[in-house]
Amino acid sequence: MSGGISRRGALSRAVLLGGAAGLTAGAGGTALALYRKPPAETPAPVTVEPFHGPHQAGVATPPQAHALLLALDLREGVDRDALARMMRLLSDDAARLTQARPALADTEPELATAARLTVTFGFGPGLYRAARLDAPVAPLPAFAIDRLEARWSGGDLLLQLCADDALLLAHAQRMLVKDARAFATVRWTQRGFRRAPGTSGTQRNVLGQLDGTGNPVPGAPGFDTALWRPDGGTTLVVRRIRAELDAWDAVDRPVKEMAVGRRLDTGAPLTGTNEFDTPDFDKRDGLGLPVIHPDSHVRLATIGDPARKILRRPYNYDDGPRPDGSPDTGLIFASYQADVERQFTPIQKALAERDLLNKWITPIGSAVFAVPPGCEPGGWIGRGLLGQ
Amino acid sequence: MSGGISRRGALSRAVLLGGAAGLTAGAGGTALALYRKPPAETPAPVTVEPFHGPHQAGVATPPQAHALLLALDLREGVDRDALARMMRLLSDDAARLTQARPALADTEPELATAARLTVTFGFGPGLYRAARLDAPVAPLPAFAIDRLEARWSGGDLLLQLCADDALLLAHAQRMLVKDARAFATVRWTQRGFRRAPGTSGTQRNVLGQLDGTGNPVPGAPGFDTALWRPDGGTTLVVRRIRAELDAWDAVDRPVKEMAVGRRLDTGAPLTGTNEFDTPDFDKRDGLGLPVIHPDSHVRLATIGDPARKILRRPYNYDDGPRPDGSPDTGLIFASYQADVERQFTPIQKALAERDLLNKWITPIGSAVFAVPPGCEPGGWIGRGLLGQ
Ligand code: HEM
Ligand code: HEM
Repeated sequence: MSGGISRRGALSRAVLLGGAAGLTAGAGGTALALYRKPPAETPAPVTVEPFHGPHQAGVATPPQAHALLLALDLREGVDRDALARMMRLLSDDAARLTQARPALADTEPELATAARLTVTFGFGPGLYRAARLDAPVAPLPAFAIDRLEARWSGGDLLLQLCADDALLLAHAQRMLVKDARAFATVRWTQRGFRRAPGTSGTQRNVLGQLDGTGNPVPGAPGFDTALWRPDGGTTLVVRRIRAELDAWDAVDRPVKEMAVGRRLDTGAPLTGTNEFDTPDFDKRDGLGLPVIHPDSHVRLATIGDPARKILRRPYNYDDGPRPDGSPDTGLIFASYQADVERQFTPIQKALAERDLLNKWITPIGSAVFAVPPGCEPGGWIGRGLLGQ
Repeated sequence: MSGGISRRGALSRAVLLGGAAGLTAGAGGTALALYRKPPAETPAPVTVEPFHGPHQAGVATPPQAHALLLALDLREGVDRDALARMMRLLSDDAARLTQARPALADTEPELATAARLTVTFGFGPGLYRAARLDAPVAPLPAFAIDRLEARWSGGDLLLQLCADDALLLAHAQRMLVKDARAFATVRWTQRGFRRAPGTSGTQRNVLGQLDGTGNPVPGAPGFDTALWRPDGGTTLVVRRIRAELDAWDAVDRPVKEMAVGRRLDTGAPLTGTNEFDTPDFDKRDGLGLPVIHPDSHVRLATIGDPARKILRRPYNYDDGPRPDGSPDTGLIFASYQADVERQFTPIQKALAERDLLNKWITPIGSAVFAVPPGCEPGGWIGRGLLGQ
């Protein structure tokens, strides 16, 4: 069983990294052989991500170095017809820009370069209201740990832009917002970063932790059920979570490791030695106490049923330092799942009640979006919902 | 003469890119042969920039993908002794972090990775006042184009952090600010970006222009005199310049190109065909009008005497979009020169009076710093000034 998960972990990394770079030393198995290519055969780095297909890009896509999340609010009077016009425009922009082609009437065509740009559209509850349609998503219930600020919460339409180049990201943002301006205003913008493009292995977050180890793996049993709705869509939860780094820095490494249940250096579970070892929640120490604390983040967040897992795609943010020098940083936690209530909410509820990590993290923003299926060339995102 | 400048330009790019990637097709000459290596000999990408030496790093260093400029104000009562203590601490942090080693008592040592981090210290006029020393730099005179905001201007101490990895940058910032907090508060923070690490050629800015073509070249005659003071120090001018992109996008390409005097696609002067061709300011068209407008940015900014040139090291910023969808973006213009009054101010004055580009750019921040010389291992930045 432990070996099974090890393989899964290594396979995950190989898939996510698009090459052999992510393989852990001890991993084996036939599925892996596919990814064990000599360096000469290593494919050139992907620089363009497909836009068209059954699912939107930017969900199962290996995370790029930079993200820009924009939540828009629809202007008054924007109805279903107007929404359809807007989504045609924005889909066309996205289809071009993601393929390193200028947008229609692009004023800076030289900035339309190839750096794995993806544009992912999410529809908030307000968009369905405007279109007089039943919304498949609702805001999350309140959690006791929440200190939500309106300026980081809600939104009718989400644009998630990710790319390996910050200038391309700024340009794509401007072209899309230019076309959206007639229909909507900007409610919030969140800028996130991960390690530099090409950095191999699981990313680290601003708390210094390896973040992503336990993520489900494309191709694994249950993965598709967990991620995609029958129509090819999914849902996105965005939580802006402040890291209380001054307090975090005041505690020792063993305390930090206990809170999560994994080591800071290797990311291994406290019951194992390698990052992708399966945590053994039943293991006890000499005193008979569980080695992995029952209220640790990983213990509470682990879901046995693969079809109920969530796919986390978080980014770091850093808005600091504040005038007094204190940090203002944390995670733009983003997770994709077929069903928010069935998959995300129970995990968040368990974490909100008991997670040891809560001492050092504070949710300050929250938003939920339905992510419509992808589209084919000539189509547009949201057509199944808003089209005639 | 034109060929001479072509070579200089190509050489510049080869030097700045640390390899053969930047060579233009038509360039020739013996100096270049040094950089024409077959791919197999291309050196591995530099991942650590030296900290110690006669000059501070981050000045002549080829620009990294990300920059974080922090201006600090000294707390009341911080005197020369306190400043010396602070600069010892910060120099030690910088010496370690730039070499991919954790800071002393680093709380997230795993985040101390190698991604060409440089830390450059600048001393503002207020620091000299606090130390009861004569300041070698003063704020710039007022220019008619200025719309300066206090929140982007001034500062007693500047930390310029640059790196190819945003997470490393965030970590280095936090470690340095942690040690500076007892002595200073944060006045402003400016975050800048250029193209992704490894992108070859001159960078483009958010206006879509190739930006950096005319920069002086390390090793060229006059370069050292223009850049370094006899003690190994230099000076830094930081201007936050907003780009009025909505207005910029409303004009045609020929107008944009006239304003600068160079083409948008190739960056070539309007009198030439390649990026590094020498502009011919005397050339006239069929109607007898100068091909490069006398009030174009490049015409006004070109300085004949190599010893009076400035070294620009600008970054793009993007704080947008605003709620109404309008862009909030521009340049963190940063230039290094031995003498602000002799080199920078005359150029800025000429541009302020007549530059056609002024219609689309607005200075909203301004700060000037002396950049002390570098230090040797065991030494610290500012010792010549603040040490006993
Ligand atoms: C700032 C906030 C958070 C931090 C710093 C954080 C950190 C971590 C870390 C270090 C791990 C272990 C490595 C890994 O598998 O990625 C982890 C796992 C996980 N976290 Fe979080 N997390 C945060 C918020 C959340 C939230 C809000 C949720 C969902 C409500 C969540 C759900 C999970 C899940 C499902 C796992 C994987 C468990 C497994 O191994 O199956 N986390 N997190
Ligand atoms: C947002 C503001 C600015 C923009 C968009 C801008 C843009 C440009 C462009 C496109 C070029 C031609 C390509 C190159 O050589 O880099 C250039 C050249 C230059 N600019 Fe600017 N610039 C700005 C502000 C300034 C300022 C404030 C100064 C100094 C006060 C300055 C000084 C120069 C110099 C010295 C050159 C090189 C001229 C030569 O060829 O020798 N620029 N700038």
